[in-house]
Amino acid sequence: MSLITLTTDFGTKDHFVGAVKGAIYSELPDAKIVDITHEISPFNITETAYILKNSYKSFPKGTVHVIGVDSELSEENKHIALELDGHYFVCPDNGIISMIVAEFKPTKIVEITIHDRIESSFPVLEVFVQVACFIARGGNLTVIGREISEYKTIIEIQPKVNQLQDQIIGGIVYIDNYGNVITNISKKMFQEIGKGRNFEINAKKHKFTKVFSKYNEVASNSAYSNQQYEGHKLAIFNSANYIEIAIYRSNLDTVGGACSLLGLAYRDTVTINFINEPKQEFTTLN
Amino acid sequence: MSLITLTTDFGTKDHFVGAVKGAIYSELPDAKIVDITHEISPFNITETAYILKNSYKSFPKGTVHVIGVDSELSEENKHIALELDGHYFVCPDNGIISMIVAEFKPTKIVEITIHDRIESSFPVLEVFVQVACFIARGGNLTVIGREISEYKTIIEIQPKVNQLQDQIIGGIVYIDNYGNVITNISKKMFQEIGKGRNFEINAKKHKFTKVFSKYNEVASNSAYSNQQYEGHKLAIFNSANYIEIAIYRSNLDTVGGACSLLGLAYRDTVTINFINEPKQEFTTLN
Amino acid sequence: MSLITLTTDFGTKDHFVGAVKGAIYSELPDAKIVDITHEISPFNITETAYILKNSYKSFPKGTVHVIGVDSELSEENKHIALELDGHYFVCPDNGIISMIVAEFKPTKIVEITIHDRIESSFPVLEVFVQVACFIARGGNLTVIGREISEYKTIIEIQPKVNQLQDQIIGGIVYIDNYGNVITNISKKMFQEIGKGRNFEINAKKHKFTKVFSKYNEVASNSAYSNQQYEGHKLAIFNSANYIEIAIYRSNLDTVGGACSLLGLAYRDTVTINFINEPKQEFTTLN
Repeated sequence: MSLITLTTDFGTKDHFVGAVKGAIYSELPDAKIVDITHEISPFNITETAYILKNSYKSFPKGTVHVIGVDSELSEENKHIALELDGHYFVCPDNGIISMIVAEFKPTKIVEITIHDRIESSFPVLEVFVQVACFIARGGNLTVIGREISEYKTIIEIQPKVNQLQDQIIGGIVYIDNYGNVITNISKKMFQEIGKGRNFEINAKKHKFTKVFSKYNEVASNSAYSNQQYEGHKLAIFNSANYIEIAIYRSNLDTVGGACSLLGLAYRDTVTINFINEPKQEFTTLN
Repeated sequence: MSLITLTTDFGTKDHFVGAVKGAIYSELPDAKIVDITHEISPFNITETAYILKNSYKSFPKGTVHVIGVDSELSEENKHIALELDGHYFVCPDNGIISMIVAEFKPTKIVEITIHDRIESSFPVLEVFVQVACFIARGGNLTVIGREISEYKTIIEIQPKVNQLQDQIIGGIVYIDNYGNVITNISKKMFQEIGKGRNFEINAKKHKFTKVFSKYNEVASNSAYSNQQYEGHKLAIFNSANYIEIAIYRSNLDTVGGACSLLGLAYRDTVTINFINEPKQEFTTLN
Repeated sequence: MSLITLTTDFGTKDHFVGAVKGAIYSELPDAKIVDITHEISPFNITETAYILKNSYKSFPKGTVHVIGVDSELSEENKHIALELDGHYFVCPDNGIISMIVAEFKPTKIVEITIHDRIESSFPVLEVFVQVACFIARGGNLTVIGREISEYKTIIEIQPKVNQLQDQIIGGIVYIDNYGNVITNISKKMFQEIGKGRNFEINAKKHKFTKVFSKYNEVASNSAYSNQQYEGHKLAIFNSANYIEIAIYRSNLDTVGGACSLLGLAYRDTVTINFINEPKQEFTTLN
């Protein structure tokens, strides 16, 4: 199977996506092409990274992921292809990879050199398709480029932990289809720093003292129907394992979502204060 | 062939759809995946039902339809899988099936039990994919769940017929891409109650005394070009065999559609009054 | 391989696209279906033509392209199927083909006659699917229709060249996902008329004296980072080989694109004045 995914900011109206798919089928009639999304905000690599890091792992090993965001070739934006965590990526060398996969080191990275003479404003069609199909057919990366030792790295804003280890200051990195706002504070970090202590999450004037695992845990009082809880705000470890602030059963187009109803926006600060329980200390003293 | 369709409220920007497709291909490399839509208004099972009941029958028998709308597991929202009209559905037990297929009884229904320990806010990825792939491979429903005798039923608002059998009171249940408004009054009901009598359809202040079969029948006066009729309002038996009120060649983004131009909205009332022709009665008397 | 593409104004929410794909798989289980787009503005054949003429050629020869825009059958809007440039098209005979492929003559055109008794408001589902699958299976066009000698032609507004051959007056024919505006002035025409002379492109009050080949050529001054150039306006030969006016790294949803920032709209005039250099004439006199 030759599985190729596409993640772009092309939108789904223009001819760009159709042209790219046609070119893939022309090169590789048996390809399976999966749209991850074409609705990245133009040139936004933060969004691209959030979406890809939460979806690429679902695909079988050997899948080739084409990233068509901010991909025009320039001196400071080379094209690269790499093997990483059993997957292949064909993308610009603009730091995107460092935002998708922090925990794995690539097995091999090449700077694509087959297109030294191509002057194109549509490199996904004219370069990435050819490279992706070559890889999907089992071709060796070194044939299409010059091996390099590392890709460009972007230092993403990471949540900060204070010296007393009782506060995490994070931020909102993505707003999803339901208007729910996703922070950069992972479940892992929350648990490692929190060590089971009580806590208060603050996002603007909103407070949360519990993080759910499923949305409808907010509606756990069986005396009421779930519908009674529509519009309730909650914090949750979302399916990507980050802390998310949500409105239960929200609808951005009608009543609004967490972003609009709670006034939370991309890059806003979210703070978690852990509480050192005096009672527990007394217990220890006994 | 293993055909799996997806109908969700995930939108097409976030990582949700990509993750689900990757998981399906990981389980079942030969699957064919078809997006019915990912643009259901969040949690809206009425919309989901309208769209699925007008599309699932086009698919070959044996197709597995995954419904990812309002699908989080809870005490009052179990997960089910069923065989019905030769098709398979994997969905929450929230009444959606009763709104899609009123006329067929399912051959078999199971409450999915393979996930008793899964606490997930993303059940489509973590449960439905596995179930759908199992069914698509020819697996038996009873392996994945406990057989139950019926699914939850929602009594949809049905059009009412008065005692004199000369009036149908229905409502608007869906607004489509062109802004055309679709009622819950079927062609079948219209013909059975109307028995060929003349009639007047009333929707707010708008009246219609004819129901077309094709949009351009409104432009049947060959003295004029079709374009002369742009913006004309009409009633039509649409391709789903329901009465629809439309604007000929409408464009929601520019001039507007029936919904905006005629001031018709979801849940508005549409009434049909049938006229008992005195002339015909005289004829009968002769 | 049986490759069928779909280009429609159906949108991606309603049941239309799902129903059509289901019907194709029912007829032809091995089909590969590619969405070119479903977001054509309702009934807009100019947009349809722009998108298809810039994407169909990427597909392998033998691909069947279904056009579901303004496709309801009428006396003045017959259905046709044709072979052209090695590709097949199934579409209404409303002039669309003449706007997609000016440079090739069709090998064969038939007026579809298999549906003389079908009264349908959804011809793509009930007619085009059947025809497309028949062709994809290798069927002969003459079986499904009556051979005709030509399709309807629309004379598109073409750029005008003045008698002195030093001015091209063209117009804006499409606005893309980034808000960039695309003119009907091709690179070929520009080069043939311009003959290397200097020039000034005028679009409303905006002037351009250079046409780039890649967007980031606008950022060629290596003293600055590319980001310094965000928001700069430029003219470019786009990937479809037409002159396009763009904003470097624009985002319609936030800062705006060329259309909004420069006040340029569909059908606006774009003029190119070529400059006869006096110096060169002197050189010739010597």
